[in-house]
Amino acid sequence: MAQFGIEVSAKPGPGVLHQLSGVIAAHEGDILSVEIVDPRRTYFEVDAPGDPPALIGALRELAIVEDVLQVETMQKIYGKRIIIMGGGAQVGQVALGAIAEADRHNIRGEHISIDTIPLVGEKALADAVRAAARLPRVSALVLAGSLMGGEIEHAVLDVRARGLMVVSLNMAGSVPDAADLVVTDPVQAGVMTVMAVADTAKFTLERLKRRVF
Amino acid sequence: MAQFGIEVSAKPGPGVLHQLSGVIAAHEGDILSVEIVDPRRTYFEVDAPGDPPALIGALRELAIVEDVLQVETMQKIYGKRIIIMGGGAQVGQVALGAIAEADRHNIRGEHISIDTIPLVGEKALADAVRAAARLPRVSALVLAGSLMGGEIEHAVLDVRARGLMVVSLNMAGSVPDAADLVVTDPVQAGVMTVMAVADTAKFTLERLKRRVF
Repeated sequence: MAQFGIEVSAKPGPGVLHQLSGVIAAHEGDILSVEIVDPRRTYFEVDAPGDPPALIGALRELAIVEDVLQVETMQKIYGKRIIIMGGGAQVGQVALGAIAEADRHNIRGEHISIDTIPLVGEKALADAVRAAARLPRVSALVLAGSLMGGEIEHAVLDVRARGLMVVSLNMAGSVPDAADLVVTDPVQAGVMTVMAVADTAKFTLERLKRRVF
Repeated sequence: MAQFGIEVSAKPGPGVLHQLSGVIAAHEGDILSVEIVDPRRTYFEVDAPGDPPALIGALRELAIVEDVLQVETMQKIYGKRIIIMGGGAQVGQVALGAIAEADRHNIRGEHISIDTIPLVGEKALADAVRAAARLPRVSALVLAGSLMGGEIEHAVLDVRARGLMVVSLNMAGSVPDAADLVVTDPVQAGVMTVMAVADTAKFTLERLKRRVF
């Protein structure tokens, strides 16, 4: 099996994805990821038994297809994602620590992206926490604020049940009680979260004697 | 037409996406976005003429489908994305400015995410620049480093031709010459990039009398 990325340029219209995915399925390709870049361009990450040229050639034969390119996979380029959300002041400090630590691991061959969104409001944050479990390549969430609880706590428990690691700053509200790890210093929270997801680090949550720092 | 998100739980196997997209196409649904969250779960953003329940009901009738949920769209939650890449020291400072400015706009109803990846190496950065044009909802890139040129410059010109705005720190190498905007202070670079993509800001690159700050 070979994993590769393909970018397809096709005439826009209903059923484009249906036709493209049909050709990939006919070649026993397992679609790992797909992005509709714009109405004319679709990007697939495929795990297929045959060689890429065979599948690419078959896609080119579709009447709607204008061009097909083989490209690097997102997993190889952007790797694991950590998403930091909450108040701008805290999100910025957590990001600073996480980016500095990710830099150190990426230099050693890791691929870790640090994604953020400054948000306010219980509903907006709860929606963003739940949506993070639907984004590709997400390994951990960091909740960075001063007060979070209610619906956000329920969202944290939901995404943890789906296998996402959740780190919370030490803050008011019930979210810290629902998190895997609670850290007081925002820079350290960013660093620890990267260490926890990096294969190049020995640090794991399981080894910690306590969950609040 | 109604835009909505649907999360489908289905038995893993070849052709899952082909079957699901076939039902959506049969309901004249335009698939705006799709994420394969894991082998059992696929998330779609659909623009469909009928009401969501009709399409959701049809998806439930597929033998492979275990459950279908209607959810908020990523566009509504995470909105526009700005991607900052380069050296960890500079990426962190640009992110600090961008996150603080995005916070101010998101409070006023904007939806702007600040995504980052610390990376080193001409090939790795050129690949990341080109890949950014294949990621959904990306409005702008910021190249944050001390020396970037060669293949990275060509990648910058490629993604600009695809409509991405590219901001570069004032640095050694040919990348600043290829960018839409060059800013010396990394915090200001982050702030200006957010202002340039925010509908809640009056700032636009077209209005600037100069492109180097």
